[in-house]
Amino acid sequence: MAGSAEDVKVRGMHAAIERDGVRDYVAVEEPLEIRVDGRPLAVTMRTPGDDERLAAGFLHGEGLIDRWPPIGPSGDLAANVVEVAGPLLRDPGARSFYTTSSCGVCGKGAIDQVAVDAPPLPLDADLPPLPRALLATLPERLVQPEFARTGGLHATGLFDRDGGPRCVREDVGRHNAFDKVVGWALERGELPLRDALLCVSGRLSFELVQKAVLAGAPVLVGVGAPTSLAVALARDRGLTLCGFARGGRVNVYSGEERVA
Amino acid sequence: MAGSAEDVKVRGMHAAIERDGVRDYVAVEEPLEIRVDGRPLAVTMRTPGDDERLAAGFLHGEGLIDRWPPIGPSGDLAANVVEVAGPLLRDPGARSFYTTSSCGVCGKGAIDQVAVDAPPLPLDADLPPLPRALLATLPERLVQPEFARTGGLHATGLFDRDGGPRCVREDVGRHNAFDKVVGWALERGELPLRDALLCVSGRLSFELVQKAVLAGAPVLVGVGAPTSLAVALARDRGLTLCGFARGGRVNVYSGEERVA
Repeated sequence: MAGSAEDVKVRGMHAAIERDGVRDYVAVEEPLEIRVDGRPLAVTMRTPGDDERLAAGFLHGEGLIDRWPPIGPSGDLAANVVEVAGPLLRDPGARSFYTTSSCGVCGKGAIDQVAVDAPPLPLDADLPPLPRALLATLPERLVQPEFARTGGLHATGLFDRDGGPRCVREDVGRHNAFDKVVGWALERGELPLRDALLCVSGRLSFELVQKAVLAGAPVLVGVGAPTSLAVALARDRGLTLCGFARGGRVNVYSGEERVA
Repeated sequence: MAGSAEDVKVRGMHAAIERDGVRDYVAVEEPLEIRVDGRPLAVTMRTPGDDERLAAGFLHGEGLIDRWPPIGPSGDLAANVVEVAGPLLRDPGARSFYTTSSCGVCGKGAIDQVAVDAPPLPLDADLPPLPRALLATLPERLVQPEFARTGGLHATGLFDRDGGPRCVREDVGRHNAFDKVVGWALERGELPLRDALLCVSGRLSFELVQKAVLAGAPVLVGVGAPTSLAVALARDRGLTLCGFARGGRVNVYSGEERVA
């Protein structure tokens, strides 16, 4: 018999449910509303936890803030709301690469819009190149304690250049995990992430490359495949983009000047 | 040396790029703007193709249309725009489960909002139960010709109750692949999908269950894990939700009355 929604008991990032008569665990998903000066700006379906970092990281990735803002907890936090105090760097309704681009709605217009918000990533010739083998092992260092239980969480990790982990976050939404890591760094005043490596557990889309570029991170590694527009944006902004990092191997799609 | 964005040559759903001095293929990602009566409603990053089905399926999954609408192609199609003619079933800005719910922003409010748009899925006692082994093999029937080349596409498939494929679509966005399949069925007048099985190549989130419920599909199978809110919505609307379909096995999280 199917149980009721009340069978779902939330404990941290996982929920216990009855399945086929046995107790099972699934990743928790709940809506989070991000408000700025009391105005609802966005709703994201996320795994509860680190909500203030998530909100700040999201706003940073949209080019709306460049420093840690006054932010909850408010009395509404229990109701899945984060309150952020402005002002924002621009009107949040004004990000419309598709209407401001001279070529209409297209990938080139989207890339041009990111260029407005973020300068090219410097090459930092003082830094030694990164061993390819190190980049290939980052996913293994992306410890996912919750994934082991539910199989349902994405992870993003921030690493030192020698592969030491600095911050790893998990979430049902791949973008949320990324935003939580960027928000963590923003709160600590560690942006731009010039000397760090970012690694994600999934595929590499345009939006993840956008978030990395806005965070000033020069290297982004993914377990999965990149898209055409992710590669194009990485090349335009000089980001080192690596995909299919698994089994000791990695493909470099852009910025291989940083790779030994 | 990193190449330029112009190295990316688009051929169908994949793009040829230079990587480490060799030719490689990645999945194509481009923005698509969905307009209703000339008003921009949404932008999604998608793999080009089936754009009208994508737009219609997206609008259906949001509860904004219930039949195939007058729709492009317009002169703007080359510029990644689909024009849909209204009227819509309601104001697209009015879907706000988080403000209309009595409990504030929460998963229960999100489930209640879906219930407004979609009745519970009937059990159809006339139909024989579905063999569990058949459900477990649906992912293998989800032929992904493009994935083999790029490793970067999600797939959604619509199958007969005996596992015969009726429509399979691939996209860089998992929601887009799902929307394209629902749009395909909407165009053919085949909604609600009472006698069909849906299968997705990834994880099972709240939004995918929402789309399935609004399409009237009683069975949704995924290769990956469900979230807590996906299970809760499936149980609330009586959808049979199956996850971790791989290696001849499948977990049933809801609606096991339909499974033998």
